[in-house]
Formats: sequence, C-alpha cells, structure tokens
Amino acid sequence: MKIAVVGVTGAVGQTTLKILEERKFPVRELRAFASERSVGKAVTFKGESVRVERIGPEAFKGIEVAFFSAGSAQSRQYAPEAVKAGAVVVDKSSAFRMDPTVPLVVPEINAHAVRSHRGIVACPNCTSIVTVMPLKPLHDAGRLRRVIATSYQAVSGAGVNGVEELRSQTLAWARGEAITPRYFPHQIAFNVIPHVDGFGDDGYTGEELKLVNEVRKILELPDLPVCPTTVRVPVFTAHSVAVNAETEVKVTRERAREVFAGFPGLTLWDEPAQGRYPMPVTAEGRDDCFVGRVREDMSLPNGINFWVVGDQLRKGAALNGIQIAELLIR
Amino acid sequence: MKIAVVGVTGAVGQTTLKILEERKFPVRELRAFASERSVGKAVTFKGESVRVERIGPEAFKGIEVAFFSAGSAQSRQYAPEAVKAGAVVVDKSSAFRMDPTVPLVVPEINAHAVRSHRGIVACPNCTSIVTVMPLKPLHDAGRLRRVIATSYQAVSGAGVNGVEELRSQTLAWARGEAITPRYFPHQIAFNVIPHVDGFGDDGYTGEELKLVNEVRKILELPDLPVCPTTVRVPVFTAHSVAVNAETEVKVTRERAREVFAGFPGLTLWDEPAQGRYPMPVTAEGRDDCFVGRVREDMSLPNGINFWVVGDQLRKGAALNGIQIAELLIR
Repeated sequence: MKIAVVGVTGAVGQTTLKILEERKFPVRELRAFASERSVGKAVTFKGESVRVERIGPEAFKGIEVAFFSAGSAQSRQYAPEAVKAGAVVVDKSSAFRMDPTVPLVVPEINAHAVRSHRGIVACPNCTSIVTVMPLKPLHDAGRLRRVIATSYQAVSGAGVNGVEELRSQTLAWARGEAITPRYFPHQIAFNVIPHVDGFGDDGYTGEELKLVNEVRKILELPDLPVCPTTVRVPVFTAHSVAVNAETEVKVTRERAREVFAGFPGLTLWDEPAQGRYPMPVTAEGRDDCFVGRVREDMSLPNGINFWVVGDQLRKGAALNGIQIAELLIR
Repeated sequence: MKIAVVGVTGAVGQTTLKILEERKFPVRELRAFASERSVGKAVTFKGESVRVERIGPEAFKGIEVAFFSAGSAQSRQYAPEAVKAGAVVVDKSSAFRMDPTVPLVVPEINAHAVRSHRGIVACPNCTSIVTVMPLKPLHDAGRLRRVIATSYQAVSGAGVNGVEELRSQTLAWARGEAITPRYFPHQIAFNVIPHVDGFGDDGYTGEELKLVNEVRKILELPDLPVCPTTVRVPVFTAHSVAVNAETEVKVTRERAREVFAGFPGLTLWDEPAQGRYPMPVTAEGRDDCFVGRVREDMSLPNGINFWVVGDQLRKGAALNGIQIAELLIR
C-alpha cells in the first residue's frame, strides 16, 4: 500500500513508523510529511531514509491510507484534500471525532463503525482510549450506569515538547538550577498540574469534555453519565486512570477480573499482594492496556473500582490508528 | 511548657520543631527523642542545639505535651508511659486513631472532641486531613451523601526515606544510570504507584481504609459512604486529592466556592482561566489547604467535583498536631 504519515517528526508520528514496521504493515511506499521547520530532515523506515516533505498540491496522489497526527488545524486543512485524492484518512487529532458522519473507533470495541466511513476515520483521544478499554467488557457484563474517571497523564500526551519539558526541568533540578516552565503552564517536574487543554466557563477542561463525549460515542451510549478529572503528572509515556463505575447489574470483583482478562487488548495485572498492578513504567512500550486494583466499591452496592494504564503513544495513539487501518484493509 | 518530640529526626519531627518556632508556641523546655541510631546527634530549636536522647525510664517526667511521630509501634509502646507521667500525647501515628476513647481531631472541624481526651489525642493521616478539610464546609452546606476520593500523594508521606528515594532515583536517571528501588516497592521517579500501605484481601490498601474510617470519625458521620483510591506520585511534599462529593441538598458551584473560601484553614484558588488552581509546588511550605477546580458534576444532579492540595508535613501532620496542642492549652 502507498501510505502517508502527516506529522511524521512528532511523538505519535515517530511511534507510527515504529509500529508499522513491527506489525509488518504492507507498506509499498511511504511519504513523510511535516511542518516547514522539519522539511529537509529525514526519518528512518525499515532501515531506509525517507525525506520529510511539506504538503504540496500533489501530496496525496495515489496514497491509500494517510495517518494524520499533526494537530487539529492541519487535519482540518489537509484531511479533506487527502480524501479528495482517494486516500482514507486515519485522524489522530480531535478535528473530526465528534462529527456524526465520522466514525470514532477503538477496534476492540466498535470495529463495525469503521464501515460507515466517508473517507475519514477518527482515532480517540489517548485518555479516552485507555479509559474506555476496560469499560466495554464491564458494560457487557453489567450495563454501565455512571463512570467517574480521574487521570494521571504522561507528558508525551503533549507531544515531544512535553517530554522535553519534563526532561529539561528535571535536569535543571539535578544541577541545582531554577526550573522555568516553557511549555506547560507551570512546573511539571516533581509537581502535578490539574489542567490539560483549555478551560470552559463551567470549569471543565477540553480534555475532560473529550473524555466524556468520546467514551459515550465509542460505547454508543450517548447519555452515559461520565464525571471526568484530568491531571498531568511527571511521567514520560503512559497514562493511568483511576475509574469508579456503577452498573445496572452487580459485577463482582471476580467477575470483573474475568471479563477484563478475557477482553482483547487488555491484560489483567491484579495480584497486589505480590506487588503486581499496572504502572506507567511497566506499561510503557507495550501494546495492551493493563488493568488492576480491581475492588468492589464499598460506598455503593453496584460499584466497582479499577486502575488502568496504557502507553499513550501506542494504544493511546499510533497503535490504535494502525489497528484502524488494518480493519480498513480487511 | 515542657514539651517532648518523639521521632524528632524524622520528616514530621523536624517540621514540628520548625512550626513550634514559627507559631511561638510557649516552649520552656524541649526534650528531643529518637531511635538508637540518632542518639548523640543534635537538633536545632530556636537557634540552640538540643541533644537527641533515647527514651529512658524518666523520659516524660514533668513533660506537659508530647508530640509523637515515630511510628505506630513506638506510640503503642511509649505513649501510655508519657500519659502515666502526666503528659498529654498528641499522636501522629495510626496507633490510636480508631480507638473510640481517643479523639481524632482536625481543629478547624471538631475542636470540641479534644475535651474528651484521656491523655491521648490522635492526629489523622495526612491524606485524610487534606481530604476532610473541604468536606466539612460542604457537608454543612448540603449534607454529604457519598464521597469518592482519588489521591496523588507525595513521597514525604513515607518519611525521609521516601524523599531520599525520589531524590536518588532522579539523580541516577540524570547521570544515565539504572534506577534501583530500595524503599518503595517499585520505581517512583517518573512513575506513579497505586499502592500506599499494605493490601487487604478485598484489594484495598491500609491507606485507603484509613481515609474512609478517619473521614467518617472526624466528620462524626459513621455511615458516610466513602470510595477511596490512594496513589503515590513523584512529588516531594504536598498531597493532592481529586474529590467527587454527592450531597443531599444541591450545592451549586458558586455556593461551594463560597463555603470553601469562608472556611478557616482553607484557601480557594479557583481562577482556572488565569492558570490559578492548587498544585503541590505552590502549596508546599504553606499552612492552609488549597481548593480549586470546583465544578458541578455533570453525571449527577447533586454532585460537585473539586481538587484539594495540602502540605503533607504541615497541615497533613506537624501543624495539625501543634494546633491540637494549642487547643489543649486553651
């Protein structure tokens, strides 16, 4: 297949190339696009150097699948051009996610939705994907009534700038120097920032609303009550989410563990007495989302608590996009 | 007054000395106790050097108030001796907190409880204090029905060893060396660990049960449904807690902000559009708890969300203990 990666020098773009190789995605030709300041650089794919280009008039000619991870503005501007040229766009940005004509897909959950695409398939926000993965088997087991999700999000969710900020602030601290925030609104090293994306008048952030809306759309439960709090923590790559879920039908701890363990793309790590539970450092670099700390809610008869961790760049972004493309091929 | 500090070389003991000075607590004589390995060292109080002693037979003779922060085993062993010698013990450990004959006090909330003491007054767990501070005015405004608390706890909650672990792991990373966990069960630098204190058969940790039981006892709501998740984060000193609270009577966002702002010991930092919300690095070294991100719960008619941060060593421990002693003097 002829494919394009737009935003190829970003954190998600780089991970996309890596996973395309790992999964032996049938790439006959790769075009690598990025913004002006990366043009002339090269990226490596399957041991070969690929020149980074700026998107020009004939950019998408002959392209079959285009992975977009350059941001919403770029997706809004160029995705329609790619579609017009005959490509299917797998879009990692938030540009089209809530468009009712665009499917929003997590392949393990709603693969069927991909069929209705009109040229664009949207990939959910990283925090939404990690949160929704265990919610699906739980919903199938007991029908969700309400979800409270509280996140611990890695800096890679803010791209290479976020990663560089945590790195450089920590190194400054190690040298005994003052820490100056440049990219995040406040110091992120040795701190937590309860602020991801912009604030609305009701006090919620864009990230929190994405979580609510995307979980509802993916699960096809448009009225599901979801209560979100999203927080940035000084972790490099994997997102963690503490979830409290209330169900119509009681789901016991044992049953919850069973359905989590049996769901594709989820791995149960829940032997706390042996120190075994999901954490960012152990989830990083892996494809599955990891769920543990499964506990019956002591404050509610039909409540269950769990803790889910997923690599934000893999299942939270690049991997999910490539899984969507694999569905399209099939 | 003649006072004793037991566990004087620990993180809480050191902060106790600092705050006794700051608040000009009327100390006529100070005795400084610690474990065998600190004996012979000296601590500084009001510019003078005080020799660190091991607790001997006459240790508490003449002592009026003894602050204990050496751990549960030490409190169980020596607090009764101090009481027998005529001292009132302010105990920071978990040894007596749930003893029905021992008051568990946060002075802004249940100062009256101190009157019933029989020689020991217990100081709550740091996470419980930070969580319960905003819950009290919220309960007074709308009567609490259910509380879901999810924590982001600093390493200082595990004492000087916890602080040293984050420091040394981060410095190892900065030198490009491998990170070896010594004190926490897993790497804490650039990671989050959903595990504070030991695990029970139901999957909850001791820290989570403390949060439930202590919040209930302090608020004098023995049946309040509380749903806890406690997590260690790579932050040095202040604890953060994301709280969702359901009330009998609707409390609007404006009303919640009003009652938070008016409560002693709480400061409202809730101008998110100006980047103003509580964070560990801005709460560190301060006496108040800081509350922000106040949002009406979109998943429940009578729900409210907020984010509270407090210096674990100050209001979460040493300061609260000294406030209890100030109540005793009055």
